[in-house]
Amino acid sequence: MDLSELENYFGERLITSESVREQHSHDESWHIPENIPDAVIFPETTEEISKIMTYASDNNIPVVPFGAGTALEGHVHAVNGGITINSINMNKIIEVNLEDMDCRVQAGVTREDLNTFLRDTGLFFPVDPGANASIGGMCSTGASGTNTVKYGTIREQVMDLEVVMSDGQIIKTGSRARKSSAGYDLTHLMLGSEGTLGFITEITLKLHGRPEAVSAGVCSFLDLAGAVDTVIEAIQICLPLSRIELLDELQMKAINEYKKTSHEEKPTLFIEIQGTPLGVREQIEKFEEIAKDHNLINFHWSDRQEEIDSLWSARHGALYAALNLAPGKKAITTDVCVPISSLTKCILDTKKDLESSSIIAPIVGHVGDGNFHLILLLDPENQDEVKEAKGINERLIKRALEMKGTCTGEHGIGLGKKEYLRIEKGVSSVNVMSQIKKALDPNGIMNPGKIF
Amino acid sequence: MDLSELENYFGERLITSESVREQHSHDESWHIPENIPDAVIFPETTEEISKIMTYASDNNIPVVPFGAGTALEGHVHAVNGGITINSINMNKIIEVNLEDMDCRVQAGVTREDLNTFLRDTGLFFPVDPGANASIGGMCSTGASGTNTVKYGTIREQVMDLEVVMSDGQIIKTGSRARKSSAGYDLTHLMLGSEGTLGFITEITLKLHGRPEAVSAGVCSFLDLAGAVDTVIEAIQICLPLSRIELLDELQMKAINEYKKTSHEEKPTLFIEIQGTPLGVREQIEKFEEIAKDHNLINFHWSDRQEEIDSLWSARHGALYAALNLAPGKKAITTDVCVPISSLTKCILDTKKDLESSSIIAPIVGHVGDGNFHLILLLDPENQDEVKEAKGINERLIKRALEMKGTCTGEHGIGLGKKEYLRIEKGVSSVNVMSQIKKALDPNGIMNPGKIF
Repeated sequence: MDLSELENYFGERLITSESVREQHSHDESWHIPENIPDAVIFPETTEEISKIMTYASDNNIPVVPFGAGTALEGHVHAVNGGITINSINMNKIIEVNLEDMDCRVQAGVTREDLNTFLRDTGLFFPVDPGANASIGGMCSTGASGTNTVKYGTIREQVMDLEVVMSDGQIIKTGSRARKSSAGYDLTHLMLGSEGTLGFITEITLKLHGRPEAVSAGVCSFLDLAGAVDTVIEAIQICLPLSRIELLDELQMKAINEYKKTSHEEKPTLFIEIQGTPLGVREQIEKFEEIAKDHNLINFHWSDRQEEIDSLWSARHGALYAALNLAPGKKAITTDVCVPISSLTKCILDTKKDLESSSIIAPIVGHVGDGNFHLILLLDPENQDEVKEAKGINERLIKRALEMKGTCTGEHGIGLGKKEYLRIEKGVSSVNVMSQIKKALDPNGIMNPGKIF
Repeated sequence: MDLSELENYFGERLITSESVREQHSHDESWHIPENIPDAVIFPETTEEISKIMTYASDNNIPVVPFGAGTALEGHVHAVNGGITINSINMNKIIEVNLEDMDCRVQAGVTREDLNTFLRDTGLFFPVDPGANASIGGMCSTGASGTNTVKYGTIREQVMDLEVVMSDGQIIKTGSRARKSSAGYDLTHLMLGSEGTLGFITEITLKLHGRPEAVSAGVCSFLDLAGAVDTVIEAIQICLPLSRIELLDELQMKAINEYKKTSHEEKPTLFIEIQGTPLGVREQIEKFEEIAKDHNLINFHWSDRQEEIDSLWSARHGALYAALNLAPGKKAITTDVCVPISSLTKCILDTKKDLESSSIIAPIVGHVGDGNFHLILLLDPENQDEVKEAKGINERLIKRALEMKGTCTGEHGIGLGKKEYLRIEKGVSSVNVMSQIKKALDPNGIMNPGKIF
């Protein structure tokens, strides 16, 4: 592979050392890389990415966009080698418009970077997957997090994207207007397309005003059904929850060990309510009434920011806490999302399926959205464990699809769910996706091997 | 054009009479049809639409999807003749899931039909363009309405679509899960694609709980700037408005004449706040304080449902009231949407531009979204009037684009804004749209002449 033209331009920002290439060959998941990129480039501008794409297109070289490397389905694996583009130096916050509550960032800015920058503005960016992902990466996988039940996913925040297409052309997909009916919605086509249609370089995001009052709490229950039924009832009476997260007894044990805390090791909800001081208190009382009808054991609320932050930091670290239960193991993180009325049955049937398994699998989830994860801990080299974990995931996905849910609420298809996409959407639908892929990336150089 | 195979199947549901074809040759806008369809078919099922599309594809016959015929940019014009498919008999509400707050409908169900059906469930469907549009049509144009500032546009309500593609294949685009990262977002690609990529046959929609308390009010101001500045300030302090609509003095005059009311004929805001009884009162007081700082003349609030309904019925009839100002005329309805901080300047500059014009042009708008309409009344056969109105629209669109807004907030491109789409999004972006169109409709039979 002749990269001399790019080497001349990028100099030390084009790296071909084995260690850097290896480091860019995988994400945080269980997927074992079968290949590594031929080179990793660290561009700083859209024009530089366009230069790379033009060269790659002319020379038929695969290109893999790489953000923070925190994906969970092998999204950044360089299955055919080629160039991996790391966006870490695309880290400019280009503008923040306080009056319009929006901002524009380069793709490599992480969600924590952005919120640190916004700290004194009264505004914040709500989408918070567990990892400190890059915003470009979050756009690529259609990420969400604990705030979704109130604020929506990344899809609801993006107003405009700048994208470098496979031939190097630069397009803009939206505007700074709050709504638009101007042509095809290329913004949403790019969101969740996992780098297979183009490289997202700049993003215009909606921001949100910080609430006047916030309270968060930890509620432990005698059984999992009690916790989930509480969520469903609260959602169904439209209680204005800003966060409602489920953690089973095993996940609570993992968090206690990882964070040196002493929460009850029982099925637990982490909850947050935002609003006016009086309104928040009123809603908490309503929530407590519902929980008491469902085997509530313990109910601790706080409006101290420090305590609230520590709670959500524990929740965001759930995957790392789970991995800490079995050092050296990796995780298959399942990601089904079902209609809320089916959630209790889906979780309990899954829990039953786990009973006969030797796999350690804490449960954690954004249950207000109907989305939950099993963190299936395994040694990717141990074929028996892989087979068992994959079996659990497959039965879970089929259960969710029967309930008219989806195989992935927020992690994406990547390498790991390609067959389930076909089952979920049907062959005709995936063929339409494939026609779009072929039209926009005729040589198939954009993140090959993902989705299809 | 040989339609005998379809005639044999559809019998009296395939109509070729001149009057029915003429009736299906245009929408409610000023665009003069240059052609009429060769036949109008009234199918009842997705399979029947698939049958039509397969035949049309095999025989290279243009197909135009037709909902309630209330589009405003010539979206249903049969520019190349062919078959117009009227979805009026696709009127089944297939299911309503109270627990999950969603429903599934056929494309021909209108927004009022659906809300009438939902009346006793405690749920409602919020998207409310002026006309009683079909939900399929609303999906096709990316419609919105007065509730957008709280509930979002139709794009935020749709969870799943069933679409018949140009070759007759039937696909599903989503699921009943509240979020999903499963493959390309075909749902949002189809929403706003104006029937150029496929025929939307069934729609799964989010529903919303009816609020505990609702108050609505009419606030008249000494000047337009006072009204718009009030909106901007209310939005910027995150006052939880569910509706906030601007009507200028001319639009108020039109409504008074059309609805036999006696509102002040001054720049006016129609406002609605939803919540708990106490919360609503608190917010109204905050709103009144803001308005008083901006030349408020009169402020009338009500929580009587009848009075509230009559207010919004007047707002929904704004276009018809405006047309009533000059019987026999048609309207070019402009549709820019700008960032909220630019709204006052955009409206005032436009008002100034109108001063030297003889065109009657009331202003009405969803100002909470930054979206407003001039209803430019003209005789489409009078070339001077058409030229003058088009000039006003063009200057308005360029003004909005300079402010990083959009040429269309909710009406779509249709026949009328094709050149502005290219200016707004850039040629490269429109080329990407065109590549998608060619991939999914290689013979260009789906609603030809629109968008491109």
